[in-house]
Amino acid sequence: MQMALRLAIKGQGFTSPNPMVGAVVVKDGRVVGSGYHQMVGGPHAEVNAIDAAGKLAKGATLYVTLEPCNHTGRTPPCTRKISEAGIKRVVISMIDPNKDVAGGGAEFLEQQGIRVTTGVCRAQAQKLIEAFVKFVHTRRPFVIAKCAATLDGRIAARSGDSTWVTGEKSRQFVHRLRHAVDGILVGINTVRTDNPSLTTRLPDGLGRDPVRIILDTHLSISPAARLLRQESAADTILVVGKPLMQDKQSALEKGGIRVIQSKLKNGLIDLDALMDQLGAMGLTSILIEGGSRVLTSAFSAAIVDKIFFFYAPKILGGDDGIPICSGPGPELMSQCIKVNNINVRRFGDDVMVEGYIG
Amino acid sequence: MQMALRLAIKGQGFTSPNPMVGAVVVKDGRVVGSGYHQMVGGPHAEVNAIDAAGKLAKGATLYVTLEPCNHTGRTPPCTRKISEAGIKRVVISMIDPNKDVAGGGAEFLEQQGIRVTTGVCRAQAQKLIEAFVKFVHTRRPFVIAKCAATLDGRIAARSGDSTWVTGEKSRQFVHRLRHAVDGILVGINTVRTDNPSLTTRLPDGLGRDPVRIILDTHLSISPAARLLRQESAADTILVVGKPLMQDKQSALEKGGIRVIQSKLKNGLIDLDALMDQLGAMGLTSILIEGGSRVLTSAFSAAIVDKIFFFYAPKILGGDDGIPICSGPGPELMSQCIKVNNINVRRFGDDVMVEGYIG
Repeated sequence: MQMALRLAIKGQGFTSPNPMVGAVVVKDGRVVGSGYHQMVGGPHAEVNAIDAAGKLAKGATLYVTLEPCNHTGRTPPCTRKISEAGIKRVVISMIDPNKDVAGGGAEFLEQQGIRVTTGVCRAQAQKLIEAFVKFVHTRRPFVIAKCAATLDGRIAARSGDSTWVTGEKSRQFVHRLRHAVDGILVGINTVRTDNPSLTTRLPDGLGRDPVRIILDTHLSISPAARLLRQESAADTILVVGKPLMQDKQSALEKGGIRVIQSKLKNGLIDLDALMDQLGAMGLTSILIEGGSRVLTSAFSAAIVDKIFFFYAPKILGGDDGIPICSGPGPELMSQCIKVNNINVRRFGDDVMVEGYIG
Repeated sequence: MQMALRLAIKGQGFTSPNPMVGAVVVKDGRVVGSGYHQMVGGPHAEVNAIDAAGKLAKGATLYVTLEPCNHTGRTPPCTRKISEAGIKRVVISMIDPNKDVAGGGAEFLEQQGIRVTTGVCRAQAQKLIEAFVKFVHTRRPFVIAKCAATLDGRIAARSGDSTWVTGEKSRQFVHRLRHAVDGILVGINTVRTDNPSLTTRLPDGLGRDPVRIILDTHLSISPAARLLRQESAADTILVVGKPLMQDKQSALEKGGIRVIQSKLKNGLIDLDALMDQLGAMGLTSILIEGGSRVLTSAFSAAIVDKIFFFYAPKILGGDDGIPICSGPGPELMSQCIKVNNINVRRFGDDVMVEGYIG
């Protein structure tokens, strides 16, 4: 199953809105076939693994990280393939969280006389597809909030300079994150200050760009912004508060930029409502990369599921730098937002704290 | 040597201004005696270990975490004791950093025909007595800056409330730190806001209180402050900017409080000069526990040797809480204070980042 989980990750960034899945066929203690769901629309992991095993699949055991589907979607049901290949035992990490199919696959296999075991390495499998699980349950994207700060909690110096807070290894991890998520969200201030490209730049060059979502309530983006002028297979979406400046909007749309309108709350984009919109657009996961205001709005709208906070081994030593969060906070320490299942990772000399909210 | 290092730590908090030292006597592969430097003025680790071994010390090997002394200080030289006991080999972690004695002990032993090996587990031994090493080289205390913050870098909410930022396990570690250091330093704002006792409270009740040092430029401390009224074997020292309010000072001094005067720099206590004063008073290590202003002054005076930054698994979510550092910071991220040899520890769900400055 560990091998199947490792295989599943290979599909990261390419399977959405499907989950990552890995599968291994074992016969007489030997791996005779393996596969993973490589991209949305392509064959499922089980099919790839069974095809790789060929005739050796007969009488073999199939290890798969997610319950095989029992319905015809983009591809025929995997359960039939498993049964027809003569697999005699199926070991499953987790039952499909999608209510339309949950339990159906395992039941069908058992009806065919195949021995089914579930729950092997379940925690790992669940973490692997945590975004998918949230999306199928809520139709809203799984939201990750990322920031990179000094040890004293500043994401930029007073001049706005943030080059670089964290080191090369942390930044590479962020590019892997961008590759893994469906969308990346920043505020117009970040666009103004950093003029970012928000593309995925991995050493092997194989990263997929996420959809770029810019909160730009008043459509104030500069036409010279790098975001509007770069080559990328992914869309750039500007989220505005109301239909303003039809001319500017039309010009942007002619340039291939999407402009969508979202509800306002206290004069800012209502992030809670926006998540419904983005979910309806099929985005299963969103990475919020800042700045300070957007991050704070996201926390206060309670849309954040997971955090990745990076701390660089340095101290700014003043309170005039840009803080991680801005705006009014609570009166008491006990009113803080709790972060659960804390995990710590090192990227060179940077320290990264990973945790879940809610 | 690992056993000797573990023994050495038992003396923590009791040996200053001497270093912690542990020693083990091994004969024919068996530990026949062990000891550590238990308290200043008491016998050295080697003497305790050799006495414990008794006649078995003859022909044995002595493992000791610091080079045995070769001079008569508070106690006779350990080298003579070693030689007289018939020890045939001495294994030493690190040479005494004290220039008055460095090398002398090992040389003397070799002259007596004893085989000497040095440098075994040196890094661990050096870390164990890092405060002592700095003190003997500079006659200034080794300074540790500690803070406890939310993940977004706030040490208190806007009301000043900081109960509690971190959890029980972190706070216990801080009490062990207080036990280990000679002095603890806070600003008058912390006294005003938290009314702390700054004593050592360990579960076993055996902690030693550090000397409490309060930066109180204008001698504005409230006579009702807990610090001034509690029972403690350790002194409380108020550091003032100039001789002010003789009456208040006399009253405090009659109550057993020490008031010392220090140089001012930009209207605040000159921490660089204060470190010379505290060093002259024999304080080899100081723990700075805040608040924000004192911590920042300490960083900007470049007196900090080591940091312990605790992060609790919570997000305040605003910029009106008390930041880790306050006052003006640099313009560029590249002008940050660098923190080296980062190490991360977990205390329950809290994350602690340990590192060195300079």
